[in-house]
Amino acid sequence: MDFLSVIEILGTCSFAVSGAFSAMEKKLDAFGVIILSFVTAIGGGTLRDLLIGDTPVGWLRDGTTTLVILLAAIGTMLFGTLLRRFTTTLFLFDALGLGLFTLVGVEKGLQLHLSPGICIALGTITGSFGGVTRDVLLNNVPLVFRKEIYASVSILGGLLYLLLLQVDMLSNLATVLSILFIVVARVMVVKFKLALPKMY
Amino acid sequence: MDFLSVIEILGTCSFAVSGAFSAMEKKLDAFGVIILSFVTAIGGGTLRDLLIGDTPVGWLRDGTTTLVILLAAIGTMLFGTLLRRFTTTLFLFDALGLGLFTLVGVEKGLQLHLSPGICIALGTITGSFGGVTRDVLLNNVPLVFRKEIYASVSILGGLLYLLLLQVDMLSNLATVLSILFIVVARVMVVKFKLALPKMY
Amino acid sequence: MDFLSVIEILGTCSFAVSGAFSAMEKKLDAFGVIILSFVTAIGGGTLRDLLIGDTPVGWLRDGTTTLVILLAAIGTMLFGTLLRRFTTTLFLFDALGLGLFTLVGVEKGLQLHLSPGICIALGTITGSFGGVTRDVLLNNVPLVFRKEIYASVSILGGLLYLLLLQVDMLSNLATVLSILFIVVARVMVVKFKLALPKMY
Repeated sequence: MDFLSVIEILGTCSFAVSGAFSAMEKKLDAFGVIILSFVTAIGGGTLRDLLIGDTPVGWLRDGTTTLVILLAAIGTMLFGTLLRRFTTTLFLFDALGLGLFTLVGVEKGLQLHLSPGICIALGTITGSFGGVTRDVLLNNVPLVFRKEIYASVSILGGLLYLLLLQVDMLSNLATVLSILFIVVARVMVVKFKLALPKMY
Repeated sequence: MDFLSVIEILGTCSFAVSGAFSAMEKKLDAFGVIILSFVTAIGGGTLRDLLIGDTPVGWLRDGTTTLVILLAAIGTMLFGTLLRRFTTTLFLFDALGLGLFTLVGVEKGLQLHLSPGICIALGTITGSFGGVTRDVLLNNVPLVFRKEIYASVSILGGLLYLLLLQVDMLSNLATVLSILFIVVARVMVVKFKLALPKMY
Repeated sequence: MDFLSVIEILGTCSFAVSGAFSAMEKKLDAFGVIILSFVTAIGGGTLRDLLIGDTPVGWLRDGTTTLVILLAAIGTMLFGTLLRRFTTTLFLFDALGLGLFTLVGVEKGLQLHLSPGICIALGTITGSFGGVTRDVLLNNVPLVFRKEIYASVSILGGLLYLLLLQVDMLSNLATVLSILFIVVARVMVVKFKLALPKMY
């Protein structure tokens, strides 16, 4: 199993957990929790695969994804209630998923020899669309449209990765650093309530 | 015309009627009703075809679908007001559509030689996504996320079909029995307010 | 650069502006405005390309679209506040985008030798889906579902174009006339509050 697959599974797991917490917060039944986990975890990668025409999409070809999501959702239901506040944990897993999936998306673009701008766009789509779907289905305002910087962090992370590759850093190390950058940046942004200025 | 096409047309018709009733309930104009019918009836099959990469999607290749939806929507507008309560009728047609389209989706997966789990997933997507789109567009909480069991019924129906095929039942008979199971189960679930337990 | 590409860029620009105004009305930050511009401008064409299986979708292959959207969004943020009322301007650009993109969609269908009904459907999808996505993401009732005639205008415009081609009018002239028809009709519809009758 190659390094990128590990990253993808970790991302799948993170978003599945964030989806499960969102659903539990809204008091959905066990099945609703599983569906929300599923949609959140596959949303970004599915839209990316559809846009680039890489069908059947990943999770239809490979049962691992479905299994990971199922385990993550059930695990969250069993042990999640030990946590006092869902929202903080939800947010952390969302940040983790954003970082991991952004890199998966950028890397997929590079493999297809797409231009740097498009690679970063694919990274941002992969990283953020699952969460958008989760929030729209649950009738929440998507995280990506809330005050704190969200998608910009993903874009900067993608850019950082491309730059690190330019200076001949080992690809795997560059991946880990860029993921760390996104997760830490998201945490800082929310902790210190950093917001983009309105230009108008 | 083969048996599966008949099932597909009946499902299209059922979901078109459920979409029309939902739109009439929200007082949309005649055109809004037709669009809602259309989106509800093609939603599930379209997402399935996109995911497996079977494009152009079905209703673009074959005018029958569009014609059936148009007739169903206009018929519902002309005769629907004879009914006192839209919600019950809407719910029955939704249950019928769920049953019929689940089987269409499972069968499509079998034709592509996909694994049993994926076939059932395709069935559930085909059966439920049109209704989810209808509910999201009208700003209702999707049926699939309400208290009563919804998607689980579709999954069980798909499983039943695969099992009946294993015991060498005639494919068409197995199809009819599985559809009946889904429709009757949905009606029972709502009548007796059966809900999945929360695991958390 | 051929005539249709010019129409497409103008449409992209119009929808990007309408998306930016919608986002500014909801007080999103600069990045939210850019995302909304983007989603509104590419929504219709992306769904059309996915449905007909023309992937990778247009804006992934050609950087011009992204650049046009970025400039339109930033321009709207810089100069948009000069306008007193966002809603009127937003509505005008939406009407313009509807007209331009409807024709792009119909023409794409003709190039693929699809039937007239399907060509018109592709035109309506291209013209209206971006706005639907914009409104769903911002939690507004989609324009297409409000009281005033919307999608019907797009359908009539598509029909007009096919008729004008039948009487051997020059394709470019027919395009311009049909776009004008849609834009003017939309303005009249809203000005005089024309609504479709409810058939029920």
